[in-house]
Amino acid sequence: MQTLKEKILQEGIVPGNNMLKVDNFLNHQLDVGFINEIGREFARRFQEQQISKILTIEASGIAVAAISAQYFKVPVVFAKKTESKNLDDDVYKSEVFSFTKDKTYSVMVSKKYLSSEDRILIIDDFLANGRAALGLKDIVEQAGAQLVGIGIVIEKGFQSGGKILREAGIQVESLAIIKRMSPGHIVFQD
Amino acid sequence: MQTLKEKILQEGIVPGNNMLKVDNFLNHQLDVGFINEIGREFARRFQEQQISKILTIEASGIAVAAISAQYFKVPVVFAKKTESKNLDDDVYKSEVFSFTKDKTYSVMVSKKYLSSEDRILIIDDFLANGRAALGLKDIVEQAGAQLVGIGIVIEKGFQSGGKILREAGIQVESLAIIKRMSPGHIVFQD
Repeated sequence: MQTLKEKILQEGIVPGNNMLKVDNFLNHQLDVGFINEIGREFARRFQEQQISKILTIEASGIAVAAISAQYFKVPVVFAKKTESKNLDDDVYKSEVFSFTKDKTYSVMVSKKYLSSEDRILIIDDFLANGRAALGLKDIVEQAGAQLVGIGIVIEKGFQSGGKILREAGIQVESLAIIKRMSPGHIVFQD
Repeated sequence: MQTLKEKILQEGIVPGNNMLKVDNFLNHQLDVGFINEIGREFARRFQEQQISKILTIEASGIAVAAISAQYFKVPVVFAKKTESKNLDDDVYKSEVFSFTKDKTYSVMVSKKYLSSEDRILIIDDFLANGRAALGLKDIVEQAGAQLVGIGIVIEKGFQSGGKILREAGIQVESLAIIKRMSPGHIVFQD
Protein backbone atom coordinates (compact mmCIF):
# COMPACT_ATOMS: atom_id res chain seq x y z
CA MET A 1 0.00 0.00 0.00
CA GLN A 2 1.91 2.93 -1.40
CA THR A 3 0.36 5.69 0.73
CA LEU A 4 1.26 3.72 3.87
CA LYS A 5 4.88 3.29 2.79
CA GLU A 6 5.09 7.03 2.14
CA LYS A 7 3.57 7.81 5.52
CA ILE A 8 6.03 5.49 7.28
CA LEU A 9 8.92 7.18 5.47
CA GLN A 10 7.61 10.64 6.37
CA GLU A 11 6.46 10.06 9.95
CA GLY A 12 8.10 6.87 11.19
CA ILE A 13 11.07 7.05 13.51
CA VAL A 14 13.66 4.30 13.89
CA PRO A 15 15.39 4.93 17.21
CA GLY A 16 17.48 1.77 16.78
CA ASN A 17 17.21 -1.85 17.95
CA ASN A 18 14.80 -2.82 15.17
CA MET A 19 12.19 -0.54 16.70
CA LEU A 20 9.90 1.53 14.48
CA LYS A 21 7.80 4.24 16.07
CA VAL A 22 4.69 5.29 14.21
CA ASP A 23 3.15 7.11 17.16
CA ASN A 24 2.18 9.96 14.88
CA PHE A 25 -0.62 8.07 13.14
CA LEU A 26 -1.00 4.55 14.51
CA ASN A 27 0.30 3.85 18.02
CA HIS A 28 -0.41 6.91 20.11
CA GLN A 29 -2.01 9.53 17.92
CA LEU A 30 -4.49 8.02 15.46
CA ASP A 31 -4.90 9.47 11.98
CA VAL A 32 -8.45 8.22 11.67
CA GLY A 33 -8.89 9.24 8.04
CA PHE A 34 -5.78 7.32 7.09
CA ILE A 35 -6.77 4.30 9.19
CA ASN A 36 -9.99 4.33 7.19
CA GLU A 37 -7.96 3.85 4.01
CA ILE A 38 -6.20 0.94 5.72
CA GLY A 39 -9.57 -0.60 6.59
CA ARG A 40 -10.76 -0.24 3.01
CA GLU A 41 -7.60 -1.99 1.79
CA PHE A 42 -8.07 -4.92 4.21
CA ALA A 43 -11.67 -5.22 3.02
CA ARG A 44 -10.46 -5.40 -0.58
CA ARG A 45 -7.84 -8.05 0.17
CA PHE A 46 -10.17 -10.28 2.20
CA GLN A 47 -13.42 -9.62 0.35
CA GLU A 48 -13.82 -13.26 -0.77
CA GLN A 49 -13.39 -14.68 2.69
CA GLN A 50 -16.85 -14.28 4.23
CA ILE A 51 -15.41 -13.02 7.51
CA SER A 52 -17.85 -13.29 10.41
CA LYS A 53 -15.73 -11.63 13.08
CA ILE A 54 -12.52 -9.63 13.45
CA LEU A 55 -10.19 -10.53 16.30
CA THR A 56 -7.50 -8.19 17.58
CA ILE A 57 -5.55 -7.55 20.76
CA GLU A 58 -5.60 -4.53 23.03
CA ALA A 59 -4.53 -1.78 22.89
CA SER A 60 -3.08 -0.57 19.60
CA GLY A 61 -4.88 -3.12 17.42
CA ILE A 62 -8.29 -1.86 18.48
CA ALA A 63 -8.51 1.30 16.38
CA VAL A 64 -7.47 -0.41 13.14
CA ALA A 65 -9.77 -3.37 13.81
CA ALA A 66 -12.78 -1.21 14.70
CA ILE A 67 -12.41 1.11 11.72
CA SER A 68 -11.79 -1.84 9.38
CA ALA A 69 -14.85 -3.68 10.71
CA GLN A 70 -17.05 -0.93 9.28
CA TYR A 71 -16.18 -2.23 5.81
CA PHE A 72 -16.75 -5.89 6.72
CA LYS A 73 -19.92 -5.11 8.71
CA VAL A 74 -18.96 -7.62 11.41
CA PRO A 75 -18.23 -7.30 15.14
CA VAL A 76 -14.73 -6.95 16.56
CA VAL A 77 -13.52 -8.93 19.55
CA PHE A 78 -10.41 -7.65 21.25
CA ALA A 79 -8.39 -10.09 23.32
CA LYS A 80 -7.55 -8.75 26.76
CA LYS A 81 -4.05 -8.77 28.10
CA THR A 82 -4.39 -8.97 31.83
CA GLU A 83 -6.68 -10.59 34.31
CA SER A 84 -9.36 -8.07 35.21
CA LYS A 85 -12.27 -8.38 37.61
CA ASN A 86 -14.52 -7.48 34.72
CA LEU A 87 -13.60 -10.50 32.61
CA ASP A 88 -15.53 -13.76 32.57
CA ASP A 89 -14.00 -16.83 34.12
CA ASP A 90 -15.00 -18.77 31.07
CA VAL A 91 -12.26 -17.76 28.67
CA TYR A 92 -9.92 -19.02 25.98
CA LYS A 93 -6.42 -18.16 27.05
CA SER A 94 -2.94 -18.15 25.54
CA GLU A 95 0.50 -16.94 26.62
CA VAL A 96 2.38 -14.31 24.63
CA PHE A 97 5.93 -13.08 25.08
CA SER A 98 6.32 -9.38 24.28
CA PHE A 99 9.78 -8.33 23.12
CA THR A 100 8.70 -4.67 23.36
CA LYS A 101 7.84 -4.99 27.02
CA ASP A 102 10.21 -7.89 27.73
CA LYS A 103 7.64 -9.99 29.55
CA THR A 104 5.12 -12.77 29.09
CA TYR A 105 1.47 -11.94 29.44
CA SER A 106 -1.80 -13.81 29.08
CA VAL A 107 -4.27 -13.00 26.33
CA MET A 108 -7.86 -13.96 26.91
CA VAL A 109 -11.11 -14.02 24.98
CA SER A 110 -14.43 -14.87 26.58
CA LYS A 111 -15.91 -18.10 25.20
CA LYS A 112 -19.11 -16.17 24.52
CA TYR A 113 -17.57 -14.27 21.65
CA LEU A 114 -15.99 -16.99 19.52
CA SER A 115 -17.78 -20.04 18.19
CA SER A 116 -16.99 -22.94 15.89
CA GLU A 117 -19.17 -21.24 13.24
CA ASP A 118 -16.89 -18.20 13.07
CA ARG A 119 -14.65 -17.30 10.16
CA ILE A 120 -12.05 -15.11 11.83
CA LEU A 121 -9.86 -12.36 10.44
CA ILE A 122 -7.09 -11.31 12.82
CA ILE A 123 -6.12 -7.66 12.46
CA ASP A 124 -3.14 -6.09 14.20
CA ASP A 125 -0.92 -3.06 13.82
CA PHE A 126 2.46 -4.83 13.77
CA LEU A 127 3.85 -8.25 12.92
CA ALA A 128 7.42 -8.95 14.01
CA ASN A 129 8.23 -12.27 15.64
CA GLY A 130 4.56 -13.23 15.46
CA ARG A 131 4.03 -14.00 19.12
CA ALA A 132 0.81 -11.98 19.47
CA ALA A 133 -0.63 -13.40 16.23
CA LEU A 134 0.28 -16.96 17.26
CA GLY A 135 -1.43 -16.41 20.62
CA LEU A 136 -4.58 -15.23 18.84
CA LYS A 137 -4.36 -18.14 16.38
CA ASP A 138 -4.18 -20.50 19.35
CA ILE A 139 -7.32 -18.91 20.80
CA VAL A 140 -9.17 -19.22 17.46
CA GLU A 141 -8.23 -22.91 17.36
CA GLN A 142 -9.36 -23.47 20.95
CA ALA A 143 -12.76 -22.09 19.91
CA GLY A 144 -12.88 -24.46 16.93
CA ALA A 145 -13.32 -21.42 14.70
CA GLN A 146 -11.64 -21.01 11.34
CA LEU A 147 -8.78 -18.56 10.96
CA VAL A 148 -9.17 -17.33 7.40
CA GLY A 149 -6.63 -14.54 7.35
CA ILE A 150 -4.37 -12.11 9.13
CA GLY A 151 -4.30 -8.42 8.21
CA ILE A 152 -1.25 -6.51 9.38
CA VAL A 153 -0.50 -2.83 8.92
CA ILE A 154 3.30 -3.04 9.20
CA GLU A 155 5.33 -6.25 9.02
CA LYS A 156 8.96 -6.38 10.00
CA GLY A 157 9.95 -8.71 7.18
CA PHE A 158 13.38 -9.30 8.70
CA GLN A 159 11.77 -11.03 11.68
CA SER A 160 10.26 -14.49 11.53
CA GLY A 161 6.53 -13.97 12.27
CA GLY A 162 5.36 -13.58 8.68
CA LYS A 163 7.30 -16.64 7.51
CA ILE A 164 5.97 -18.84 10.34
CA LEU A 165 2.35 -17.83 9.72
CA ARG A 166 2.52 -18.10 5.92
CA GLU A 167 4.18 -21.53 6.17
CA ALA A 168 1.23 -22.55 8.36
CA GLY A 169 -0.94 -21.88 5.28
CA ILE A 170 -2.52 -18.66 6.49
CA GLN A 171 -3.29 -15.77 4.15
CA VAL A 172 -1.20 -13.01 5.73
CA GLU A 173 -1.72 -9.60 4.16
CA SER A 174 0.72 -6.97 5.36
CA LEU A 175 0.15 -3.52 3.91
CA ALA A 176 3.81 -2.55 4.27
CA ILE A 177 6.68 -4.99 4.74
CA ILE A 178 9.97 -3.61 5.95
CA LYS A 179 13.00 -5.38 4.54
CA ARG A 180 15.52 -3.61 6.71
CA MET A 181 15.82 -0.44 8.72
CA SER A 182 18.25 1.65 10.69
CA PRO A 183 18.02 5.17 12.12
CA GLY A 184 16.98 7.50 9.29
CA HIS A 185 16.73 4.64 6.78
CA ILE A 186 13.82 2.31 5.99
CA VAL A 187 13.75 -0.10 3.04
CA PHE A 188 10.54 -1.88 2.03
CA GLN A 189 10.14 -5.22 0.29
CA ASP A 190 9.39 -4.89 -3.46
CA MET B 1 -29.84 8.12 23.98
CA GLN B 2 -32.79 5.75 23.92
CA THR B 3 -31.24 3.00 21.76
CA LEU B 4 -28.27 2.84 24.13
CA LYS B 5 -30.51 2.48 27.20
CA GLU B 6 -32.39 -0.33 25.48
CA LYS B 7 -29.14 -2.04 24.55
CA ILE B 8 -27.87 -1.80 28.13
CA LEU B 9 -31.15 -3.29 29.40
CA GLN B 10 -30.98 -6.11 26.86
CA GLU B 11 -27.28 -6.92 26.92
CA GLY B 12 -25.85 -5.44 30.11
CA ILE B 13 -25.11 -7.68 33.07
CA VAL B 14 -24.92 -6.47 36.67
CA PRO B 15 -23.01 -9.14 38.58
CA GLY B 16 -23.18 -7.04 41.75
CA ASN B 17 -20.86 -4.57 43.48
CA ASN B 18 -21.93 -1.65 41.30
CA MET B 19 -20.34 -3.36 38.31
CA LEU B 20 -21.98 -3.23 34.90
CA LYS B 21 -20.67 -5.50 32.18
CA VAL B 22 -21.36 -4.47 28.62
CA ASP B 23 -18.82 -6.84 27.11
CA ASN B 24 -21.30 -7.78 24.41
CA PHE B 25 -21.03 -4.48 22.53
CA LEU B 26 -18.53 -2.11 24.18
CA ASN B 27 -15.84 -3.63 26.39
CA HIS B 28 -14.77 -6.90 24.81
CA GLN B 29 -16.88 -7.47 21.72
CA LEU B 30 -17.47 -4.26 19.77
CA ASP B 31 -20.74 -3.66 17.96
CA VAL B 32 -19.17 -1.32 15.47
CA GLY B 33 -22.43 -0.29 13.79
CA PHE B 34 -23.85 0.69 17.15
CA ILE B 35 -20.67 2.49 18.19
CA ASN B 36 -21.09 4.47 14.99
CA GLU B 37 -24.46 5.70 16.26
CA ILE B 38 -22.75 6.68 19.50
CA GLY B 39 -20.17 8.64 17.55
CA ARG B 40 -22.85 10.44 15.59
CA GLU B 41 -24.59 11.41 18.83
CA PHE B 42 -21.36 12.81 20.34
CA ALA B 43 -20.83 14.81 17.15
CA ARG B 44 -24.34 16.25 17.48
CA ARG B 45 -23.87 17.20 21.12
CA PHE B 46 -20.46 18.82 20.64
CA GLN B 47 -20.97 20.24 17.16
CA GLU B 48 -20.54 23.88 18.27
CA GLN B 49 -17.29 23.24 20.10
CA GLN B 50 -14.71 23.35 17.29
CA ILE B 51 -12.92 20.28 18.64
CA SER B 52 -9.36 19.95 17.33
CA LYS B 53 -8.48 16.63 18.94
CA ILE B 54 -10.12 13.77 20.81
CA LEU B 55 -8.34 12.39 23.86
CA THR B 56 -9.07 8.98 25.33
CA ILE B 57 -7.36 6.32 27.37
CA GLU B 58 -6.40 2.78 26.44
CA ALA B 59 -7.88 0.26 26.02
CA SER B 60 -11.66 0.33 25.97
CA GLY B 61 -11.96 4.04 25.14
CA ILE B 62 -10.09 3.64 21.86
CA ALA B 63 -12.84 2.11 19.72
CA VAL B 64 -15.45 4.71 20.70
CA ALA B 65 -12.99 7.57 20.29
CA ALA B 66 -11.71 6.37 16.89
CA ILE B 67 -15.18 5.75 15.45
CA SER B 68 -16.46 9.07 16.86
CA ALA B 69 -13.48 10.95 15.42
CA GLN B 70 -14.71 10.12 11.92
CA TYR B 71 -17.60 12.54 12.51
CA PHE B 72 -15.38 15.27 13.95
CA LYS B 73 -12.66 14.75 11.32
CA VAL B 74 -9.92 15.21 13.93
CA PRO B 75 -7.14 12.94 15.22
CA VAL B 76 -7.46 10.83 18.35
CA VAL B 77 -4.74 10.64 20.98
CA PHE B 78 -4.95 7.78 23.42
CA ALA B 79 -3.21 8.11 26.75
CA LYS B 80 -1.03 5.12 27.60
CA LYS B 81 -1.32 3.35 30.89
CA THR B 82 2.08 1.82 31.53
CA GLU B 83 5.65 2.72 30.90
CA SER B 84 6.68 1.13 27.61
CA LYS B 85 9.99 1.24 25.80
CA ASN B 86 8.13 2.63 22.81
CA LEU B 87 6.97 5.79 24.57
CA ASP B 88 8.78 9.12 24.44
CA ASP B 89 10.50 10.38 27.53
CA ASP B 90 8.96 13.73 26.92
CA VAL B 91 5.45 13.14 28.25
CA TYR B 92 2.65 14.67 30.25
CA LYS B 93 1.84 12.30 33.06
CA SER B 94 -0.84 11.86 35.69
CA GLU B 95 -1.72 9.22 38.29
CA VAL B 96 -5.05 7.39 38.22
CA PHE B 97 -6.50 5.00 40.75
CA SER B 98 -8.58 2.24 39.16
CA PHE B 99 -11.32 0.79 41.35
CA THR B 100 -11.88 -1.96 38.76
CA LYS B 101 -8.30 -3.15 39.00
CA ASP B 102 -7.71 -1.90 42.54
CA LYS B 103 -4.40 -0.20 41.74
CA THR B 104 -2.86 3.12 40.82
CA TYR B 105 -1.35 3.48 37.38
CA SER B 106 0.27 6.26 35.40
CA VAL B 107 -1.34 7.72 32.31
CA MET B 108 0.93 9.40 29.82
CA VAL B 109 0.62 11.45 26.65
CA SER B 110 3.59 12.49 24.57
CA LYS B 111 4.09 16.25 24.54
CA LYS B 112 4.17 16.05 20.74
CA TYR B 113 0.46 15.36 20.51
CA LEU B 114 -1.11 18.05 22.67
CA SER B 115 -0.52 21.77 22.28
CA SER B 116 -1.84 24.98 23.83
CA GLU B 117 -3.78 25.55 20.59
CA ASP B 118 -5.85 22.41 21.05
CA ARG B 119 -9.54 22.29 21.90
CA ILE B 120 -9.88 18.85 23.44
CA LEU B 121 -12.85 16.54 23.71
CA ILE B 122 -12.29 13.64 26.10
CA ILE B 123 -14.20 10.50 25.13
CA ASP B 124 -14.44 7.41 27.30
CA ASP B 125 -16.67 4.38 27.69
CA PHE B 126 -17.49 4.75 31.41
CA LEU B 127 -17.63 7.49 34.00
CA ALA B 128 -17.92 6.36 37.62
CA ASN B 129 -15.76 8.03 40.26
CA GLY B 130 -14.12 10.13 37.54
CA ARG B 131 -10.52 9.20 38.26
CA ALA B 132 -9.59 8.45 34.63
CA ALA B 133 -11.31 11.62 33.37
CA LEU B 134 -9.61 13.73 36.05
CA GLY B 135 -6.25 12.25 35.06
CA LEU B 136 -6.88 13.18 31.42
CA LYS B 137 -8.11 16.66 32.45
CA ASP B 138 -4.86 17.12 34.37
CA ILE B 139 -2.87 16.16 31.26
CA VAL B 140 -4.88 18.59 29.09
CA GLU B 141 -4.12 21.36 31.61
CA GLN B 142 -0.43 20.49 31.71
CA ALA B 143 -0.40 20.98 27.93
CA GLY B 144 -2.11 24.37 28.29
CA ALA B 145 -4.84 23.08 25.98
CA GLN B 146 -8.54 23.78 26.48
CA LEU B 147 -10.80 21.00 27.68
CA VAL B 148 -14.10 21.81 25.97
CA GLY B 149 -16.09 18.71 26.83
CA ILE B 150 -16.27 15.13 27.99
CA GLY B 151 -18.32 12.54 26.10
CA ILE B 152 -19.18 9.41 28.05
CA VAL B 153 -21.08 6.37 26.85
CA ILE B 154 -22.31 5.16 30.26
CA GLU B 155 -22.22 7.19 33.46
CA LYS B 156 -22.81 5.65 36.85
CA GLY B 157 -24.87 8.54 38.18
CA PHE B 158 -24.75 7.20 41.72
CA GLN B 159 -20.98 7.71 41.82
CA SER B 160 -19.34 11.11 42.12
CA GLY B 161 -17.40 11.57 38.86
CA GLY B 162 -20.11 13.35 36.88
CA LYS B 163 -20.88 15.76 39.72
CA ILE B 164 -17.20 16.65 40.25
CA LEU B 165 -16.61 17.31 36.55
CA ARG B 166 -19.84 19.28 35.98
CA GLU B 167 -19.15 21.42 39.06
CA ALA B 168 -15.77 22.19 37.51
CA GLY B 169 -17.72 23.81 34.67
CA ILE B 170 -17.10 21.12 32.07
CA GLN B 171 -19.75 20.11 29.53
CA VAL B 172 -20.16 16.44 30.35
CA GLU B 173 -22.43 14.54 27.95
CA SER B 174 -23.25 11.03 29.07
CA LEU B 175 -25.40 9.08 26.62
CA ALA B 176 -26.88 6.93 29.37
CA ILE B 177 -26.84 7.74 33.08
CA ILE B 178 -27.59 4.95 35.50
CA LYS B 179 -29.42 6.08 38.62
CA ARG B 180 -29.21 2.76 40.42
CA MET B 181 -28.66 -0.87 39.60
CA SER B 182 -28.64 -4.32 41.13
CA PRO B 183 -28.51 -7.80 39.59
CA GLY B 184 -31.25 -8.01 36.96
CA HIS B 185 -32.35 -4.41 37.54
CA ILE B 186 -31.08 -1.16 35.99
CA VAL B 187 -32.77 2.23 36.40
CA PHE B 188 -31.73 5.22 34.30
CA GLN B 189 -31.97 8.91 35.15
CA ASP B 190 -34.93 10.73 33.57
